[in-house]
Amino acid sequence: MAKLSAPSGFRDFLPDQFRKRSELICRIRDVYEAFGYEGIDTPAMEKLAVFLGKGGGENEKLMFRVLKRGAELGRALEKQGELADMGLRFDLTVPLARYFATHRGELPAVFKRYHIGPVWRAERPQHGRFREFVQCDVDVLGSPSPLAEADVILATATALEALGFTSLTVRLNSRPLLGQLVRAAGVPEDLVNGVFTSIDKLDKLPPDEVKKEMLGRGVADAAATSLLEFAQASETLDDAAKLAEVERRCGETGAALLSQLREVISMTPELPSGKLVFDPFLARGMDYYTGPIFEVAAEGVPFSLAGGGRYDELVGVLSGQKIPAVGFSIGFERVYTLMLERKMFAAGDRAAEVLVTIPHPSMAAEAVKLSAELRGPGLRVDLFPGKAKLPQQFALAEKKGIPFTASVSEEELSKGVVTLRDLSTRKNEQVERAKAAEWLKGKV
Amino acid sequence: MAKLSAPSGFRDFLPDQFRKRSELICRIRDVYEAFGYEGIDTPAMEKLAVFLGKGGGENEKLMFRVLKRGAELGRALEKQGELADMGLRFDLTVPLARYFATHRGELPAVFKRYHIGPVWRAERPQHGRFREFVQCDVDVLGSPSPLAEADVILATATALEALGFTSLTVRLNSRPLLGQLVRAAGVPEDLVNGVFTSIDKLDKLPPDEVKKEMLGRGVADAAATSLLEFAQASETLDDAAKLAEVERRCGETGAALLSQLREVISMTPELPSGKLVFDPFLARGMDYYTGPIFEVAAEGVPFSLAGGGRYDELVGVLSGQKIPAVGFSIGFERVYTLMLERKMFAAGDRAAEVLVTIPHPSMAAEAVKLSAELRGPGLRVDLFPGKAKLPQQFALAEKKGIPFTASVSEEELSKGVVTLRDLSTRKNEQVERAKAAEWLKGKV
Repeated sequence: MAKLSAPSGFRDFLPDQFRKRSELICRIRDVYEAFGYEGIDTPAMEKLAVFLGKGGGENEKLMFRVLKRGAELGRALEKQGELADMGLRFDLTVPLARYFATHRGELPAVFKRYHIGPVWRAERPQHGRFREFVQCDVDVLGSPSPLAEADVILATATALEALGFTSLTVRLNSRPLLGQLVRAAGVPEDLVNGVFTSIDKLDKLPPDEVKKEMLGRGVADAAATSLLEFAQASETLDDAAKLAEVERRCGETGAALLSQLREVISMTPELPSGKLVFDPFLARGMDYYTGPIFEVAAEGVPFSLAGGGRYDELVGVLSGQKIPAVGFSIGFERVYTLMLERKMFAAGDRAAEVLVTIPHPSMAAEAVKLSAELRGPGLRVDLFPGKAKLPQQFALAEKKGIPFTASVSEEELSKGVVTLRDLSTRKNEQVERAKAAEWLKGKV
Repeated sequence: MAKLSAPSGFRDFLPDQFRKRSELICRIRDVYEAFGYEGIDTPAMEKLAVFLGKGGGENEKLMFRVLKRGAELGRALEKQGELADMGLRFDLTVPLARYFATHRGELPAVFKRYHIGPVWRAERPQHGRFREFVQCDVDVLGSPSPLAEADVILATATALEALGFTSLTVRLNSRPLLGQLVRAAGVPEDLVNGVFTSIDKLDKLPPDEVKKEMLGRGVADAAATSLLEFAQASETLDDAAKLAEVERRCGETGAALLSQLREVISMTPELPSGKLVFDPFLARGMDYYTGPIFEVAAEGVPFSLAGGGRYDELVGVLSGQKIPAVGFSIGFERVYTLMLERKMFAAGDRAAEVLVTIPHPSMAAEAVKLSAELRGPGLRVDLFPGKAKLPQQFALAEKKGIPFTASVSEEELSKGVVTLRDLSTRKNEQVERAKAAEWLKGKV
């Protein structure tokens, strides 16, 4: 049979990878929980009606649909609706809206939740893009206060710091304020969204290219020039100067949005290892944002590690009431890849500490006993459950990242001793059996 | 819009449920890792070819199929294969076989892995039966030694003990030996599998009913009587007597299987809080077992908590080589339900310890600062990110299971003190701000 693999765009996780991904999830979760966010889970799939036209945007088109059980396959089926009645979740936000609509009465009035879990998208498989990947979200539902923004910003920055990232920059803007800024520069209403798309490229393209793109969209030269001059100037201005310039440009139409932004800034305390910066040209992709938006970057990383914002319209679509909401999502897969590249994981963290080897098949039962004894005081003790020569058993320990082996031979059994081996030095030591756990605990 | 819910047979998990399920997973995982089992993960879905006819048995029929992207839906489609090319995993064993075939070169020669994750089956939804549920498996691949059985038995019993179950009984038998026993009683080959099904009901039906069922299958009265007499007698016999009786009945044909079973018994050390018992009539459902089989029951629980056995043929189907394998699976959902009913979870374990409340909106920014200060020394500190009267904020803390609140008013700010409130006694105490964390740590 041909060698079988995971489906294209899907991944298996080998033990070492699984350990690291689990560590990543645990470290993030610990921080979220330290901030009072509560974990939840929702089904992998939802009824199609939940997903269709509910703010998923482009991602909705990438949804995997699940074949309806017992659908009649032998005849012409006009509509996909007859074939599929459920879809796999393509993000964690639309399921959150459905979850909140279902359980509102059982949840706190202001609901702070985190959700870390897989989502599925039928992307064209390519390097670094997967059809199954983990999303990692914190959201506050039910609060219109800028405290909600401050809370998710502080929690997310703290989580990234706990992972080992330093010199973080949290960039902050307001999506509707950016709209006012663009309109104030003289961009007509029908070109505003196009200009957002161009502005979003300021990170990757030189200003001239972005300007050319704007002109290509039909934006007047004066408007494009005005925007790009401010964009370039704002790189060297401090927050107060940028806020003043936005205020000058937008006038009354931006006043409420600006004061909202100033409140977020004033509520967010100093970040342990980073800073909050107002970036009047931060745009972000999703168009469901209705207020402040934010991204986190780390020094020397050419992409953002997390992104989010206020989205006051989405949750209400399903619950039938206006539900203010703020969320921040860590780019789990890119953070994982980056941490692998930078060796930011504690190596072999959760591997066993001792392998009990079996010097002779007749000693197998005794080896099981020894392993149970050593586990008693809290050691993580693997047992080699097969027949192999000792060098192969040592090789297995090394392969699994286990630093010590322990064994008992027939002669040692009668003497009440065991042999402990340090695989890094390849030295054996005979130790009184009753003291073996203590000896090992002192070394691991 | 009508109230939306999770699809039928699927579950949302509220924060308290999620916390308990996470705790359950962590506690089991800790034990498996302490035994040297390594965690892995596989995709939620596999190519259909992986699942079809590979030992999934009845479960294969319950597979959810994923609609192929871009399948032409407007014309007659004769075969489901044209519509779906992937299926959602219905167990963790078939994906393990595929995983092992794919990665054998990267894995240890004897591969001890655990896998805890969701599987999906299109069951008819009914009480206690879900379409998405968690499976929790340990398996040893690559070892024909009875040490592998001893290892998974000890690991699983230890895990169940770590969850708080005591007085465990691990029942052990050999599936092929049961076949020999049935044949030796005079059951013809074509009725053997039917008799297994009847024997499997000995737990639930009185012996007379089981006998009637056997006779209905065409089994001779003498054969049925002989088997059921032994089944009843074996309830009071010790292991040695049962083994001797099986030996007497099976003669030479059972010799190798009996010696395999005796080895498993001799290799398994005393269980910390339970016993290993030979049950010559243990049958287990799946017909892919090729050797010893086992189940764990706890005192007063009318169903088994875990089951498993040796299945030497399944993994090789995909890897093209004979791969001996032994596995043990904890019934995660039934264990979860049982632990809920018996209140075996540590209550509110991972909720925040302190809620920082906001006595007046003007103190919001100061409250964020206070929450960050208290988190510094390791407290889990929630912040109420909205506007509400104090009693509502206290109610939120109680709803989330948070025992203390902390707040700072304008006057307290100038004096350098904070108010700490014990929600169980409803008493406030003013404490020096610098000592607040210490005060709280002493109480939580």
